Amino acid sequence: MNKLETSVIFDPKTDAYPSRVYAEPRWLPRQDPIVYGEWNAESGISKEQSDFYAKTGYLFLENFFGEAELKGYQEKARRLREASQNLSSDEIIRVPGGEEVQSIFAIHRTHPVFQELSRHPRLLAIVEYFLGGQAYIHQSRINYKPAFTGKEFYWHSDFETWHVEDGMPRMRALSCLIALEDNYPFNGPLMVMPGSHQIFVSCVSQTPEDPSKEFIAPDQASLTELAKRCGIETPVGKAGSVLLYDCNLMHGSNSNITPYPRSNIFMVYNSVKNKLAEPYFGKKPRPEYMATRAEL
Amino acid sequence: MNKLETSVIFDPKTDAYPSRVYAEPRWLPRQDPIVYGEWNAESGISKEQSDFYAKTGYLFLENFFGEAELKGYQEKARRLREASQNLSSDEIIRVPGGEEVQSIFAIHRTHPVFQELSRHPRLLAIVEYFLGGQAYIHQSRINYKPAFTGKEFYWHSDFETWHVEDGMPRMRALSCLIALEDNYPFNGPLMVMPGSHQIFVSCVSQTPEDPSKEFIAPDQASLTELAKRCGIETPVGKAGSVLLYDCNLMHGSNSNITPYPRSNIFMVYNSVKNKLAEPYFGKKPRPEYMATRAEL
Repeated sequence: MNKLETSVIFDPKTDAYPSRVYAEPRWLPRQDPIVYGEWNAESGISKEQSDFYAKTGYLFLENFFGEAELKGYQEKARRLREASQNLSSDEIIRVPGGEEVQSIFAIHRTHPVFQELSRHPRLLAIVEYFLGGQAYIHQSRINYKPAFTGKEFYWHSDFETWHVEDGMPRMRALSCLIALEDNYPFNGPLMVMPGSHQIFVSCVSQTPEDPSKEFIAPDQASLTELAKRCGIETPVGKAGSVLLYDCNLMHGSNSNITPYPRSNIFMVYNSVKNKLAEPYFGKKPRPEYMATRAEL
Repeated sequence: MNKLETSVIFDPKTDAYPSRVYAEPRWLPRQDPIVYGEWNAESGISKEQSDFYAKTGYLFLENFFGEAELKGYQEKARRLREASQNLSSDEIIRVPGGEEVQSIFAIHRTHPVFQELSRHPRLLAIVEYFLGGQAYIHQSRINYKPAFTGKEFYWHSDFETWHVEDGMPRMRALSCLIALEDNYPFNGPLMVMPGSHQIFVSCVSQTPEDPSKEFIAPDQASLTELAKRCGIETPVGKAGSVLLYDCNLMHGSNSNITPYPRSNIFMVYNSVKNKLAEPYFGKKPRPEYMATRAEL
């Protein structure tokens, strides 16, 4: 028995998706639906699109937002970034070692235009169809990936993090990425492994001996095998496009040395039937702006 | 007059491509041909391919090498990497801060299979057509860009380096990249700005006050404007493909977090009519394995 197991406050024998508890990586089958709703004419997408999402774990909707809507989001995001430059707030994350704003969290809470966006009827129809009923924002943010110096973001399943660090019980959440600029295959776009949402890669246990190892990542052998089975795709398109992806889809992004910055709005929806429990390992809950607990 | 100009041993007034001498970046027009030869049936490519190269500065030749040839190069590259792991030699470059082999230089000199490759008749026919006669290897190497941790390589024109650091007088050289593995848009492939070979971006002067700034890069405004005019392309394809590109083509690559490594052979050919002179700024010539001077 390794040191960590003594501090585990959930039982890996009964939990569907134990992670960071075993010494070796394990693959566990998904035990939850992908599409919770029954498809009908009000689902907001075609049956074919729904089937594609169920199979791959993602759905790319080109030109989802019209020009006027998009312009409103772009301008607000730009003004917000400028205003945040000289502000100090937990919700504002800067690039490592720099002053430039990298992310602004909780935008749906503090800015009416993004609150409205989070409740956008055409978007919400699809989200609630996938999640099978009412959903709330687990996390929202704008990510500004700068031109020339944008850094990579390593492979991960969001659910692995949310499960362990936020106590999200099951796979009943999804991310919605709204492209504020044109995305190209070469400016560090989101890469996904289609179909990887069917497998939960249980990450190896944390090493309390090395507290510097903060970032828990899937092991290379699992990623190699997943890529072999699933392939890698980069769903990109014009500003105003929307990418929906399942909480357990393996994804990441490369760096961006091109002159094209990449700004995206992320809205993470979780089902109201999937409210957060206590984080695992007796961890302190992450702040509200990263994992909503209060406003349900 | 800044400090540097006093140590310039070439005259920016008469040199066609002064760089690292002005305080601001400058754009200078190319004063040399791109295709030096007269096209005919022995040029090794079609007239259309030749015109494409002249216009864009690159040419991608899918499946240039047959399976048997390719296999020979792949196996030799693999064995060479293994053998180099525990060898210490100037020609063997390791990843920064690590033990893994990143590049092996001068492979055409020390390994018969690559010497033969450097004189491959079908390849040499094209090279000598582009360069207008006899050419020699200015530099050869294998690059191993690892999976998961491959780093980006920032935008640059090879010629800018070779002109200043190696004293290469004119634009009469080209690179030949031989893909040893399949290249994808998402595993950090070479990105090029088609048409950028027509413009010489004179980099700003070095700052002797900050000797840590070893890497001279084109300025961001120039790169932004070039990308706007030229766009960005990632010519990728199967193992055994060849990418030829002009010495002044602006190129670079993003990082690689995918499980797919990327190994390429680079052969740089220079015209015998374009032999190296003294490096600028009274610099010491770079080692033979980076810039051939002896064997002409």
